Amino acid sequence: MGGAAAFASIAASYFAPTRLIGAVGGDFPPAYRRRLVKRKIDLTGLQVDATGKTFYWSGKYREHFAGRDTTEVQLNVFEKFSPVLPEIYRDSRYVMLGAIMPALQHHVIDQFKGLPKPFILADTFDLWIHTTKPDLLRLLKRIDLFVINEDESLLLTGARDLVVAAKMLRKMGPRMVVIKKGGHGSMLFHPEGVFAIPAFPVSKFVDPTGAGDSYAGAITGYLASVNRTDFAALKQAVAYATAVSSLTVESFSVNRLATAGRKIIDARYKALQAMTRF
Amino acid sequence: MGGAAAFASIAASYFAPTRLIGAVGGDFPPAYRRRLVKRKIDLTGLQVDATGKTFYWSGKYREHFAGRDTTEVQLNVFEKFSPVLPEIYRDSRYVMLGAIMPALQHHVIDQFKGLPKPFILADTFDLWIHTTKPDLLRLLKRIDLFVINEDESLLLTGARDLVVAAKMLRKMGPRMVVIKKGGHGSMLFHPEGVFAIPAFPVSKFVDPTGAGDSYAGAITGYLASVNRTDFAALKQAVAYATAVSSLTVESFSVNRLATAGRKIIDARYKALQAMTRF
Repeated sequence: MGGAAAFASIAASYFAPTRLIGAVGGDFPPAYRRRLVKRKIDLTGLQVDATGKTFYWSGKYREHFAGRDTTEVQLNVFEKFSPVLPEIYRDSRYVMLGAIMPALQHHVIDQFKGLPKPFILADTFDLWIHTTKPDLLRLLKRIDLFVINEDESLLLTGARDLVVAAKMLRKMGPRMVVIKKGGHGSMLFHPEGVFAIPAFPVSKFVDPTGAGDSYAGAITGYLASVNRTDFAALKQAVAYATAVSSLTVESFSVNRLATAGRKIIDARYKALQAMTRF
Repeated sequence: MGGAAAFASIAASYFAPTRLIGAVGGDFPPAYRRRLVKRKIDLTGLQVDATGKTFYWSGKYREHFAGRDTTEVQLNVFEKFSPVLPEIYRDSRYVMLGAIMPALQHHVIDQFKGLPKPFILADTFDLWIHTTKPDLLRLLKRIDLFVINEDESLLLTGARDLVVAAKMLRKMGPRMVVIKKGGHGSMLFHPEGVFAIPAFPVSKFVDPTGAGDSYAGAITGYLASVNRTDFAALKQAVAYATAVSSLTVESFSVNRLATAGRKIIDARYKALQAMTRF
């Protein structure tokens, strides 16, 4: 069980009522669905194409997890997926757009037309920077928080220095930017200031797949739970995201993330506080 | 003007009275000597060989400062250098051993025999791990704090995970270990806990030469100034070291470090506090 929607919604569900939009095929195992239901995730927006097959991805990480290569990808139901915002989702105040094609991310935002504008976080993926950059650049003007990793930031801005890169990214549209550095933590660039946090030092590193999705999901869930987007709230959100994504990398799939519980997340949040304060 | 003794002693001099041991030739420019004197550094331990030439090193950094290659090295007066602890240095309570040959680092410690044991910080260099590892391993049993960078730590322990590596390094002798990650900050492993701090985000990165020396010098100077080595003091020392070494990389040589002044160091320390607190 993988996919941005699974990782992100489970992560968000630790903080706030969570609603999912996505697509699966008739082969999506009932046990996977139960895992989401168990985390009280609203699946009204999950499109099930009974005759189709679920999206499939497999990849191989390079030595020491320095990048990864796709070994197999089957788009399946994603070939003609169009995200539909269910009527009952229309009052959502915090929206995370996973790293699907920018045109589809736009389509989700379009469906909020005429409604109070929610806070929008968007993730992306190097493929979209290479293939649909104009759409992505247009998207950046419509979102509040852009979450991106160091390599993608370099690809998009040409700037290796994160302070310089973040300044450029914010000029492209989003008021706030988070740049993730994998095992080296992450940095938040907010109109009110800069915040840096190390990664949580896990003792058992298994698989980084989904770490970025759970990171972004946790930020969204935490912001929704406090219903604030000031600097203090964003710093706390990023710290919670750091704690949550440290669980994701400790197992294959959502296994650890889905079962860990809020207590250990709070404990890691406090440990991060202790570890960084002087 | 370069060299570990220059960078480290200038860094330390911002916090506590500083004494230097080193060797130069007759060609050492009086202006360089004045820079040290201006920072009130005691030069009793500076051996001047009027007929010899000062140590010379030049190197080239790889793209994006990922490692460096030596282009020229002239040992000169270092060929037969033997560090001598002057009589008036014998009451030193905090000693930093720069990254010279481990046999010479041992020789400095030997000269404290019969005196109250000072707190000893040692730095090293990948060359010594390759060529004189047994001496280095013996040294580790005689020091309190080992400051090492990520690559050297990997070379010495074989462990890429810093928590695992630090555990191994502490088993080799030193009660405390600091692992430096360049632009990604550093981590302190103390018997009382772990501390992580990001690098100070400089806006003008010029030359990393001497950053590690000034980092270690600042730690030593700060510890001497508070005369404590508990976890709280070490965390503060590492934060000050982070602030001080950020000045070093903003210019060639000691130019920025030697002239910046304590005020800007305190300002960067406070900025680091603000940047990491949540």
